Amino acid sequence: MLNEGDLVLLWSPHKGDSYLLSLKSGAFQGTRTGTIPHDSVAEASYGGVVTTGKGQLFYVLRPTSGEFMRRIRRQTQIIYPKDAGLLLLYLDIFPGARVLECGTGSGSLTSLLGHFVGESGRVYSYDRREEFSLIARDNCRRWGVEERVTFRIGEAVDGFEERDVDALVLDLPSPWEALDAAHAALAPGRRLAALVPTTNQLERLIDGLNEGAFVDIQVLETFLRTYRTNARRIRPDDTMIGHTGYLVIATAVLARGGSGEGEGADEGDGA
Amino acid sequence: MLNEGDLVLLWSPHKGDSYLLSLKSGAFQGTRTGTIPHDSVAEASYGGVVTTGKGQLFYVLRPTSGEFMRRIRRQTQIIYPKDAGLLLLYLDIFPGARVLECGTGSGSLTSLLGHFVGESGRVYSYDRREEFSLIARDNCRRWGVEERVTFRIGEAVDGFEERDVDALVLDLPSPWEALDAAHAALAPGRRLAALVPTTNQLERLIDGLNEGAFVDIQVLETFLRTYRTNARRIRPDDTMIGHTGYLVIATAVLARGGSGEGEGADEGDGA
Amino acid sequence: MLNEGDLVLLWSPHKGDSYLLSLKSGAFQGTRTGTIPHDSVAEASYGGVVTTGKGQLFYVLRPTSGEFMRRIRRQTQIIYPKDAGLLLLYLDIFPGARVLECGTGSGSLTSLLGHFVGESGRVYSYDRREEFSLIARDNCRRWGVEERVTFRIGEAVDGFEERDVDALVLDLPSPWEALDAAHAALAPGRRLAALVPTTNQLERLIDGLNEGAFVDIQVLETFLRTYRTNARRIRPDDTMIGHTGYLVIATAVLARGGSGEGEGADEGDGA
Amino acid sequence: MLNEGDLVLLWSPHKGDSYLLSLKSGAFQGTRTGTIPHDSVAEASYGGVVTTGKGQLFYVLRPTSGEFMRRIRRQTQIIYPKDAGLLLLYLDIFPGARVLECGTGSGSLTSLLGHFVGESGRVYSYDRREEFSLIARDNCRRWGVEERVTFRIGEAVDGFEERDVDALVLDLPSPWEALDAAHAALAPGRRLAALVPTTNQLERLIDGLNEGAFVDIQVLETFLRTYRTNARRIRPDDTMIGHTGYLVIATAVLARGGSGEGEGADEGDGA
Repeated sequence: MLNEGDLVLLWSPHKGDSYLLSLKSGAFQGTRTGTIPHDSVAEASYGGVVTTGKGQLFYVLRPTSGEFMRRIRRQTQIIYPKDAGLLLLYLDIFPGARVLECGTGSGSLTSLLGHFVGESGRVYSYDRREEFSLIARDNCRRWGVEERVTFRIGEAVDGFEERDVDALVLDLPSPWEALDAAHAALAPGRRLAALVPTTNQLERLIDGLNEGAFVDIQVLETFLRTYRTNARRIRPDDTMIGHTGYLVIATAVLARGGSGEGEGADEGDGA
Repeated sequence: MLNEGDLVLLWSPHKGDSYLLSLKSGAFQGTRTGTIPHDSVAEASYGGVVTTGKGQLFYVLRPTSGEFMRRIRRQTQIIYPKDAGLLLLYLDIFPGARVLECGTGSGSLTSLLGHFVGESGRVYSYDRREEFSLIARDNCRRWGVEERVTFRIGEAVDGFEERDVDALVLDLPSPWEALDAAHAALAPGRRLAALVPTTNQLERLIDGLNEGAFVDIQVLETFLRTYRTNARRIRPDDTMIGHTGYLVIATAVLARGGSGEGEGADEGDGA
Repeated sequence: MLNEGDLVLLWSPHKGDSYLLSLKSGAFQGTRTGTIPHDSVAEASYGGVVTTGKGQLFYVLRPTSGEFMRRIRRQTQIIYPKDAGLLLLYLDIFPGARVLECGTGSGSLTSLLGHFVGESGRVYSYDRREEFSLIARDNCRRWGVEERVTFRIGEAVDGFEERDVDALVLDLPSPWEALDAAHAALAPGRRLAALVPTTNQLERLIDGLNEGAFVDIQVLETFLRTYRTNARRIRPDDTMIGHTGYLVIATAVLARGGSGEGEGADEGDGA
Repeated sequence: MLNEGDLVLLWSPHKGDSYLLSLKSGAFQGTRTGTIPHDSVAEASYGGVVTTGKGQLFYVLRPTSGEFMRRIRRQTQIIYPKDAGLLLLYLDIFPGARVLECGTGSGSLTSLLGHFVGESGRVYSYDRREEFSLIARDNCRRWGVEERVTFRIGEAVDGFEERDVDALVLDLPSPWEALDAAHAALAPGRRLAALVPTTNQLERLIDGLNEGAFVDIQVLETFLRTYRTNARRIRPDDTMIGHTGYLVIATAVLARGGSGEGEGADEGDGA
């Protein structure tokens, strides 16, 4: 028996129809083949089954953080699971970490960071647009991590309040303008990440990182390919996401070393 | 000032040379240009700099879980960060989760799961080969998560001791043989993952999942592309990993629904 | 000044609107912003400009074989330029070659093969469905290569009439059923290609090739990523084709050699 | 029975060992398991078999243009079949075409263009370094297309001698410096292609094309994934080429149209 507020993913084998809901006694979920009472879902419990009036069967599943990210109410570009998963490993997120995010947006990454830092961690999320902060707060509440996030209204150029954070994400159109503030906030030896969609931004950001006290600059792209799972006709799906952005990772150090150590200076890779 | 046992990534701008070490007073790290005393590293502290006898500069960085996975002492195929990151989101790992892994191997995924479930979580890791269990335990100790892991010697065909686990990973050549045991151990509505390298295994696994009480079967492939970061010559690296495996995700339910609901049955995707 | 029947690609910088047409005196091309007389196009000639009533500018370009393939009138799945280009090199198409195709379909590959074998070459194209043969013939006529193609109504199981062809393409759902006929038609040391969408087909085809007198079996997949070309915002397009098919290439030999030479027998690539 | 000068690909099922040779009576091909007399190869003929002293079996196959490109004697970066195949379709190469190439290099693309323009076509290939021209000429001779190529020593800045060519390829580090010369040589409505490895070059080239009388600018990247073909363990190869270059295609027109038609001006694709 599930409880008020529990999150549920209703998933149907028919075309993979699915819905994400927070249980509310007396409420109904609409589907293309009729409504489903939340009370029936609560009774079926996780792993169980409910059926619409027209007989469409839905399984009661637990939603994952990845599912939640993809279905978030949004007004801005969101970060995809394929990029977010990599970011967890390359930024070194851990339970208990203090993480700063600049560019709250709709809060898809905010809620994910809140998920992975756990109850003992903390996310500080900045956005200069208060309306986004409200949407993001609401999304974090749905995912049950609102208490782990401090929302701040503000811009990187004014600096961040925090110091010695364990990881920092810049989700901004001009992340190179935020590098001084980011360096001041990061613990030495810790990493920042930025996701930029164009090669023009990529070049400016790399220039900025090379001018600041950042080392081990990495640029990553990820591709995710999904498959059809009819056992007699296994094949990749016809279309895939071709681009989300270039994921840039760099590590803050106290100071750049002596001259002549230019990143990649040894490489001769011209045409 | 760093302490005995602290993990450090020494990273040099010269060709990206790097070393992962646990600090030990009086010890030395060898490099291609001379040795570095651990005591100097401890004194430099995170974000600082040390230099070899021949003048090569190394930054003292904090290693990430992703770096650790890639550098683990191994005797078996390891899981790559690109796949592991996605698995965290699609399996729904969270701080406090109880996760079962079958196929400990060298413990690269074990240590990562231990990292993300945190102090309040638990990883149960099975392998039938005791020698791997020992290597894996040692790797988990290095990453500081040994206390979160229960290592078990055993095979899936004999069943798992745990019940109602929050997530389950099968890292085995024949994961279809472990599906009954996996279903018995998983909490209803929760997910299992398996990584298989060949299309032949993929087909057998999908067949097995369709015969069991599993739904929402997903097959994913990820690609990671890395870049050279010389700001005047930004370009992807010449080579990349072309294949690690097919990541298969499925969700356990109490029972499969009525007949005729076959996964993907609506799709007409023949040649 | 262009002539009756000349092929033209009208391309507009406004959203990349474009139309492919065969010039016909007195005819008009409709667009979203008004009609354009073919006579104006003929007068503007290649490299010139025409304008619609509402002022939308169109350049008069020469269509390429790649453009033609993508825009062909079709009733079946077509082969994409990314696969066709590779096939030209791996099958060894050349001016003067005699090429056999089984599975005419809408003739997109037929017209391309006709294009590259030139006036001195010949394409023999089989389909069991006469209606496709007619569409394909019409498409080849538009591209000006109809004279180079012999269309045949028939199935692979009945064998092919030709012998010693320089290359052979199987574009069929069950290409493994056509391998005997293909081997009989191919010149020794020459190659066949097949494009299959599913892993299940791939396995059956590889089994069939291994049983027949074919060697140097290759399986290829191609991906094509396109970019937005606004010079200030260069970036890959948001979506891309995720799958067209597995391109399988094999070479006909007089007979398979002694036992124990099994393809890939040296490889140990299990999980 | 094969003849003096015939090209042969010797291919062994053992690890895919292979050798490309021009038959020469009395000569021997060395292998890891002993030598093979060319005369035996000639006698076995295409599709036949020869064996080394230690019993390794080799099939006598016809080499393809793709194989030839990959095995060419080189002193410079070569163009890969995956890119070359696409280029044939997007540049609109055809039997009889007159094609200009600037940047002969080792002649891998030169020989391929010679292959596809056929006896009635012509390739004009420029390089400012005479030593490359000699290597390229030798490679074209091996592939039997030397008679179709005019090698010229010279640079793009001095202009090209040809006019109204059907296609033009710039394989240069700074292709933007060659755009005026390229435009003067191209027939109106025809296409040029350039392959550049870095995003920095890509941006300069797109800027240059936008300033000149070029339209329909396209940027393409291709990926090729190869598979292991053991029928019981079908899987992609572990590694793949991660980058060769950005393939840029543009079409020459008589003049750019009115102001405000900026390429991609309608797109809003900022971060």
